[in-house]
Amino acid sequence: MAKNPIPDIIVGRLPRYLRALDIMLRNGIKTTSSQELGEAIGISAAQIRKDLSQFGEFGKQGTGYSVRYLVDQLQAILHVDRSWDLVLVGVGDLGTALARYQGFVNRGFRIILAFDNDTDKVGKSIGNLKVMGMDSMEEEISRSGVKIAMLTVPASSAQAVAETLVKSGIKAILNYTPVQLNLPEEIRVEYIDPLVKLQHMTYYLG
Amino acid sequence: MAKNPIPDIIVGRLPRYLRALDIMLRNGIKTTSSQELGEAIGISAAQIRKDLSQFGEFGKQGTGYSVRYLVDQLQAILHVDRSWDLVLVGVGDLGTALARYQGFVNRGFRIILAFDNDTDKVGKSIGNLKVMGMDSMEEEISRSGVKIAMLTVPASSAQAVAETLVKSGIKAILNYTPVQLNLPEEIRVEYIDPLVKLQHMTYYLG
Repeated sequence: MAKNPIPDIIVGRLPRYLRALDIMLRNGIKTTSSQELGEAIGISAAQIRKDLSQFGEFGKQGTGYSVRYLVDQLQAILHVDRSWDLVLVGVGDLGTALARYQGFVNRGFRIILAFDNDTDKVGKSIGNLKVMGMDSMEEEISRSGVKIAMLTVPASSAQAVAETLVKSGIKAILNYTPVQLNLPEEIRVEYIDPLVKLQHMTYYLG
Repeated sequence: MAKNPIPDIIVGRLPRYLRALDIMLRNGIKTTSSQELGEAIGISAAQIRKDLSQFGEFGKQGTGYSVRYLVDQLQAILHVDRSWDLVLVGVGDLGTALARYQGFVNRGFRIILAFDNDTDKVGKSIGNLKVMGMDSMEEEISRSGVKIAMLTVPASSAQAVAETLVKSGIKAILNYTPVQLNLPEEIRVEYIDPLVKLQHMTYYLG
């Protein structure tokens, strides 16, 4: 993080810009403005201009942005101009749904390893993916060199499994468990917790 | 929103405070500090104090917060001191995983209606939940009075289904599709998109 002066909150908005621009590209839209992009995402045009200006000059006053150019630039900034391999740990209902989800592959992420501690699941296949036992996890991940894991194990084992992932060389964890992981500072963790989102909305419904 | 002067970004952090405090409560911890809470969540103590001060005085200088009192207060602020009914639209892999997930019920959210347009799924049961056809959706939701929907339909039908949900009286949508929904301003929409989270992390891995 020390090498990286750009606030994380800005970094976190870039994938949302990219998603909206990808849709424009698919719809044949060639140029856009911060105004138009902002309306598509629900972020102010001023915020978008300010965020993007952190990374360079992507558009000209009055002529707007080339959608293709901005997509290319954002992909390069986010390092998704290449494809990434993923590890899936926990092949319950949610893990299975993630393993089957086509949206990852389409956008450059591919699950190449899957682990579960349920002996009924070990050895079974989900598409091209064969579920392996947790006992081989550290070795398999180390050998694969994969850096990103999706964690969908029960809450009670989340911390222990995450620690093994870090030992295996994992640098980033997409955490689907409701557990706040306590890991070395250099490990990136992002949380997906529908309860947090639901409670955010009920604030406004009360 | 006009009635509500508290920035949405602050509101969005409250469920994360509540989640950490819930864990403390379950672990028998009776008092905490903004320092300790901050370390558990990865947010600065100053930020937590500033956020909470928007809603009142919850702790005393030097003695910290009563965990139970703060949980009660946050639950009241977020309106989760009552239980909420949910509608699930789209019973594919992910929708099925959500329908089976026990974490919602445990934290006061209960899926009471589920819809899908696949005639093979209509009439089938997931636990106590019977999947209904989309043709009865507007009527069933209107009659139920449910205000919150989880949307797990294919991207191509997300906007149309969301518009029907709004017509049915839905006020808040947890959107699992990668589609930016274009809905009346008073409808709350929160997005769950693992790709956005993965791309946020690859920025730091590059």
